[in-house]
Amino acid sequence: MEDAPAKGLARKRLTTAELVDGVRAGDRAILGQAITLVESNARSHQVQAQDMLAQLLPHTGNARRIGITGVPGVGKSTFIEALGTKLTAEGHRVAVLAVDPTSGVTGGSILGDKTRMNKLSRDDHAFVRPSPTSGSLGGVNRKTRETLLVCEAAGYDVILIETVGVGQSETLVADMVDFFLVLMLAGAGDELQGIKRGILELADVIAVNKADGDNALNAQRARHEYASALKLMRPTTPTWKPRALTCSGQTGEGLNELWETIEAHRRALTESGELALRRKNQLRGWMWSMVEARALDALHQHPLVKQNAVTLEEAVLDGTTTPTLAAAALLRAFGIEP
Amino acid sequence: MEDAPAKGLARKRLTTAELVDGVRAGDRAILGQAITLVESNARSHQVQAQDMLAQLLPHTGNARRIGITGVPGVGKSTFIEALGTKLTAEGHRVAVLAVDPTSGVTGGSILGDKTRMNKLSRDDHAFVRPSPTSGSLGGVNRKTRETLLVCEAAGYDVILIETVGVGQSETLVADMVDFFLVLMLAGAGDELQGIKRGILELADVIAVNKADGDNALNAQRARHEYASALKLMRPTTPTWKPRALTCSGQTGEGLNELWETIEAHRRALTESGELALRRKNQLRGWMWSMVEARALDALHQHPLVKQNAVTLEEAVLDGTTTPTLAAAALLRAFGIEP
Repeated sequence: MEDAPAKGLARKRLTTAELVDGVRAGDRAILGQAITLVESNARSHQVQAQDMLAQLLPHTGNARRIGITGVPGVGKSTFIEALGTKLTAEGHRVAVLAVDPTSGVTGGSILGDKTRMNKLSRDDHAFVRPSPTSGSLGGVNRKTRETLLVCEAAGYDVILIETVGVGQSETLVADMVDFFLVLMLAGAGDELQGIKRGILELADVIAVNKADGDNALNAQRARHEYASALKLMRPTTPTWKPRALTCSGQTGEGLNELWETIEAHRRALTESGELALRRKNQLRGWMWSMVEARALDALHQHPLVKQNAVTLEEAVLDGTTTPTLAAAALLRAFGIEP
Repeated sequence: MEDAPAKGLARKRLTTAELVDGVRAGDRAILGQAITLVESNARSHQVQAQDMLAQLLPHTGNARRIGITGVPGVGKSTFIEALGTKLTAEGHRVAVLAVDPTSGVTGGSILGDKTRMNKLSRDDHAFVRPSPTSGSLGGVNRKTRETLLVCEAAGYDVILIETVGVGQSETLVADMVDFFLVLMLAGAGDELQGIKRGILELADVIAVNKADGDNALNAQRARHEYASALKLMRPTTPTWKPRALTCSGQTGEGLNELWETIEAHRRALTESGELALRRKNQLRGWMWSMVEARALDALHQHPLVKQNAVTLEEAVLDGTTTPTLAAAALLRAFGIEP
């Protein structure tokens, strides 16, 4: 895998200068190749990608970074198509990215099938990018963050990052955006309606989607319930109280109010200086998370640690040694004297 | 600090056999010394403590391990005194421990003043232990978990672990108990009433305390609100749906129902095999968390990492390098080739 040529890069390799210029000029084909380079696992591609990114960095940071999550069936594609089309009509340039932890497993990427966003895919002011199809969550994390930067350097001023609510993907996305939107359904029964644990913590807005036709009243009721639940939570910042809204990707209803809310959030956090601070913290946190993840990886992959872990775990579970003694033994195996 | 003799150990040092026998015989003075040994940071004490623990391990695991959290003013002491007294009257032996992340900072430990639990402290079937007054959260974590084991070996069949809702202390406690109880107040205004983020995820029961006198009706209302909020959450296990109750540490009202609920939870999770599984996972997780914490500590304390970190962080924040390149440089400094 490591040295397999990435699809789309094999035929003609652009120089870093060509990539940088092309991206900056908004050339869609070159933008696509630049992202493919970022997504490649080949060592030589990674070296060039980092070189390119370093040159693009001064031109990044100007977009609204918005995360969107919701369970399958909540209508994410239709919603994003409707919101994206509204925004390009108003003069915005919109990029849609995806973090899809299931794509590696099931083979089906949430954005793999571009036809899901027919209209937006053909929109000159929009750029829809399928999710990277392989790699660990850490790898997907890096690829998505770097793709976001490339899109910003290409002049997209709204970046929508979509994710299905699986595993750690929401936390991952929430940690790379300015605003996090959670789409929900009304009256879908207890199981579907159940909020994934931790999601209330991340939401800047909960929007009850499919608030149209016969479902409009149910959606209002659900909105009310979510609003009450949000009120019980202590907000993370005094500057913003998470809200519950309704919308319809189908009819477009509620999209104006939702976008105004996103803009109000942006104004509030810009004025208080929190937006700049949050982005700095995200950047610093991302660097350290890569360092720590790789260090822990080295720990768990260390031959002596692996060799001793099974026996020590068993001894701890059997009660023949204490966790503290077992931990000390593993640290000695890793070469750290406790 | 490392080699300072722990208070209460200086005068007469018991042998490990004396400690083990004394703890097993339920000798309160020796139990106190055994815990002081566990809490000591001196290397020689730690060696003896681990030796003692290894011998006590076969006699542990038989208690109900219950975590209790709530903001200051929620009435934790009165509640624990009332619940503990009820339980000893019914034939239980109750140990009360505390995890207090503020004690190191403010000097005031939540259980430092034993007089707060006057009745329980004088109860022959209860053992109230102030929280360890110093150390990192990781150190407090180890000390509390090991103290719990010592108390179990001494025959206490109910262990109540109290914590104030600060920092990571609830997560810490939730991860060492079978059942996690969150005490709340009714109508204390938005700020006090606000649920700390993440707390809904941890609660097996939310109990609205001080449900007495004029406050009884308010408490019922609050209970109803919390019950609604809990219903919106997806439960972590199909075996148990978190519930909201009311109680009064002052009048004792609701304590029977609360205890019956705790016992129902225990029966449900015992039958499904989840209790045994959860404890195994806690044990395994604790061992690895000690290993990982120490490895990350070694990373952050590494002279070359420290030396390079400031410059690299600045370069990342200035946009003169990418987080990925900076991370690679830090890993090389730590001796890991990325």
